[in-house]
Amino acid sequence: MKLCIYNTLSRKKEIFEPLHPPLIGMYVCGPTVYGDPHLGHARPAITFDLVFRYLKHLGYRVRYVRNITDVGHLEADQDFGEDKISKTARLEQLEPMEVVQMYTNEYRLKMMQLNVLPPSIEPAATGHMIEQQALVEKILENGFAYEKAGSVYFDVEKYNRNNNYGKLSGRKIEDLIASTRELEKQQEKKSPLDFAIWKNADPEHLMRWPSRWGEGFPGWHVECSVMSAKYLGTEFDIHGGGMDLLFPHHECEIAQTVAGYGKEAVRYWMHNNMVTLNGQKMGKSLGNAISLEQFFSGEHSLLEKEYHPMTIRFFILQAHYRSTLDFSNEALQAAERGLERLFDGMKTLDRITPSEKSTMDLEQLEKSFFEAMDDDFNSPIAISHLFEGIKTINNAAAGKESMTENDLEKCRQFYHKAVQEILGLLPEGKASGDQELTRELIELLLQMRTDARKNKDFDMADRIRDEMARLGVEVMDTKDGFEWKLHR
Amino acid sequence: MKLCIYNTLSRKKEIFEPLHPPLIGMYVCGPTVYGDPHLGHARPAITFDLVFRYLKHLGYRVRYVRNITDVGHLEADQDFGEDKISKTARLEQLEPMEVVQMYTNEYRLKMMQLNVLPPSIEPAATGHMIEQQALVEKILENGFAYEKAGSVYFDVEKYNRNNNYGKLSGRKIEDLIASTRELEKQQEKKSPLDFAIWKNADPEHLMRWPSRWGEGFPGWHVECSVMSAKYLGTEFDIHGGGMDLLFPHHECEIAQTVAGYGKEAVRYWMHNNMVTLNGQKMGKSLGNAISLEQFFSGEHSLLEKEYHPMTIRFFILQAHYRSTLDFSNEALQAAERGLERLFDGMKTLDRITPSEKSTMDLEQLEKSFFEAMDDDFNSPIAISHLFEGIKTINNAAAGKESMTENDLEKCRQFYHKAVQEILGLLPEGKASGDQELTRELIELLLQMRTDARKNKDFDMADRIRDEMARLGVEVMDTKDGFEWKLHR
Repeated sequence: MKLCIYNTLSRKKEIFEPLHPPLIGMYVCGPTVYGDPHLGHARPAITFDLVFRYLKHLGYRVRYVRNITDVGHLEADQDFGEDKISKTARLEQLEPMEVVQMYTNEYRLKMMQLNVLPPSIEPAATGHMIEQQALVEKILENGFAYEKAGSVYFDVEKYNRNNNYGKLSGRKIEDLIASTRELEKQQEKKSPLDFAIWKNADPEHLMRWPSRWGEGFPGWHVECSVMSAKYLGTEFDIHGGGMDLLFPHHECEIAQTVAGYGKEAVRYWMHNNMVTLNGQKMGKSLGNAISLEQFFSGEHSLLEKEYHPMTIRFFILQAHYRSTLDFSNEALQAAERGLERLFDGMKTLDRITPSEKSTMDLEQLEKSFFEAMDDDFNSPIAISHLFEGIKTINNAAAGKESMTENDLEKCRQFYHKAVQEILGLLPEGKASGDQELTRELIELLLQMRTDARKNKDFDMADRIRDEMARLGVEVMDTKDGFEWKLHR
Repeated sequence: MKLCIYNTLSRKKEIFEPLHPPLIGMYVCGPTVYGDPHLGHARPAITFDLVFRYLKHLGYRVRYVRNITDVGHLEADQDFGEDKISKTARLEQLEPMEVVQMYTNEYRLKMMQLNVLPPSIEPAATGHMIEQQALVEKILENGFAYEKAGSVYFDVEKYNRNNNYGKLSGRKIEDLIASTRELEKQQEKKSPLDFAIWKNADPEHLMRWPSRWGEGFPGWHVECSVMSAKYLGTEFDIHGGGMDLLFPHHECEIAQTVAGYGKEAVRYWMHNNMVTLNGQKMGKSLGNAISLEQFFSGEHSLLEKEYHPMTIRFFILQAHYRSTLDFSNEALQAAERGLERLFDGMKTLDRITPSEKSTMDLEQLEKSFFEAMDDDFNSPIAISHLFEGIKTINNAAAGKESMTENDLEKCRQFYHKAVQEILGLLPEGKASGDQELTRELIELLLQMRTDARKNKDFDMADRIRDEMARLGVEVMDTKDGFEWKLHR
């Protein structure tokens, strides 16, 4: 079994051959911190958290770099207009770095709730100003950029003469030229395809640094070329990000790296697909941009209820990272039930009486799981094998299959490794181990109430209901028995 | 009532007069991130968290900057030897920024557990290289520094001719000169008092940046002058830190700021006192450097048990920040009981039957609390007033005092504001709101068991006990009734 990774560059699955095993270098594009983290942040974070965890499981020592973009990312990903962070700062009457701090804190908190491991290094664009200026200077020296009115632009057509601009995204430069409208504000550029690697700061621009080209700030794409080279070297194993970053961001990154450092850096380019909501693209203007906080609290008109971070995580892992993924209440509730079945099955292991012989083929189960993971991190297939195993476990608990003491222990260990360590799923409420106890205590009280009613002890039954109501546990009688809901 | 702050600069309490009300600028020295956060990190963080919360309570809008030192802090706070972070990186075989990330994450997590609010901006020294080089250049231009072999040193004696080096720490330059041994490695300096503001990097030094003086890194003191000026302006309200930073760190900061920007920046210098453990200075070599994680888990030979983060916080607040504070098991357990009494008293408010008249003087209680806080944030006195109030509350519950409905509500609001918002103390386990519910559900079940026994329904009583035991709740009969314990 060998790990295969779909390489966006070659458009096929390739056997993963690290440059310097057991060390692995992985760079993933992190958030631009100017707003509340939403689903579009959760998917790449969870996708590459899975990659990070699985590579570590395989015995590699991974240096995982995920950046924070805190300057230079202009509105609509263009080379003109306002800086996204400065704009928020202006609207919220804050210093730009206060905006950065607030949303970086919020991002880290949400990632923690999703059980996403922190990367080894989380470098910020503002933290690498000298390094970025040095790359811009190198690109200028090498003749692949030109200065105009205090800004420096990358000369795409010149670069393309001996290199292939578009190789990652599969675009052709002729088509790009044909489809690009000449915009007035871009008159400084020789060609509309060119992109800024250093931007002159307008007088009202808040975030600015001195440079030999005057006061300004780096172009958005520069930080990733620079910070990956600084922490992972000029050649490294994996570069990841969302598919929306493929063009122009990653295409420009390759061009800058080749123009500045003389060669391509990345061996395997990985891109996760996008998320939609009820079949629609998400966007603030469409009114369906739901933040992770809103998912966790249920406080959004499109949500029927709150969803635990582990439900969101499981739902994302139930699709392959290269497929699109549509969020809906129905699909999330199905994921919620699925996750519960998975953990219930794992708990069932403790209730099985060991037999002399096993009818369960544990070895095959493990093999299938790891084969799926080795096949470009195919988590949905891997999870389906786990569910197959759960069926056998439930059958064993019902006496229809059997497991030896040794197999039971091995099975427990395998599920722990697969579910908690590799998939990073925690039993709901593990963070507060009390949730489970609370549920059990409530069910014990309700059982006593049912018994009291059977014994015609209605005083007792009512008393239990009233006392529970006082504690915020509402009991609703239904035709099948009852349901309860927590109001606290 | 006016807020008074003890100003280290004047050695007396002064009425606090902000420069630009309602805006306040506050800068506090944060950690050098090369090891696990310990008590020495908790005290300044909690001290200035109290200041931050109280200033906000007074209606100010506070921009609170607390830095992360991730480069330039050399062993033994000297101008030679290894960088603390690089050394850890070498020993742990990591890239320096991996060390920075790891311990910064750990610091943030521990601060969150201590309910320390995140600062408005958390800038890192490596993130301000251009700005630091610009200050070094300005100091050189102004004639208060000299270059030697790729390093730049601050000329203390020259600065002292027209300024007072030592004004903050109360040291005299003649005494300093007399007491400084000339060290061989400092031969580059004109005087042993001089300090590096830019250091030439030895070939083996990992963290290095290009500069007009060659590759190197900033001196430790420079970052604070630079980052406070960048985010708070060249004159701002409050600068805080531990007393161990008074000299040389803050003394040098003042000198740099005056030499570079032409005037002093800080209006009020505040310093928290040190912590000791069982009367001894803490230190790795003394074997008594206990990390916050070890306090929280109890896993250290000097600890009798684990201590909840809120116990640590309360214990720190029970001393005035300018007093030394000695940690011992006995003192922490007393704080634990005190905190429980405080929260129990607050809960008692819900059990008091309102009367027509109040015997409690709530107005006086509030006044005393805020007077103590206004008197240089005297939290121990403020807390003692809260305990006085708790006595009255307990008496009211016992029918020995009385409170009106209106006073009960005002009292609840006051305690919430004082305890949770200003002192930042949370009921233990509030983070998981379920703990409280769990306790209440258990008590409801135990009440039902008591009732069943009274009614001679021993089957029911035993069943409740057995079911609870199955859930891990052990019920122990005592001569006064029963106790219960959770085994999970």
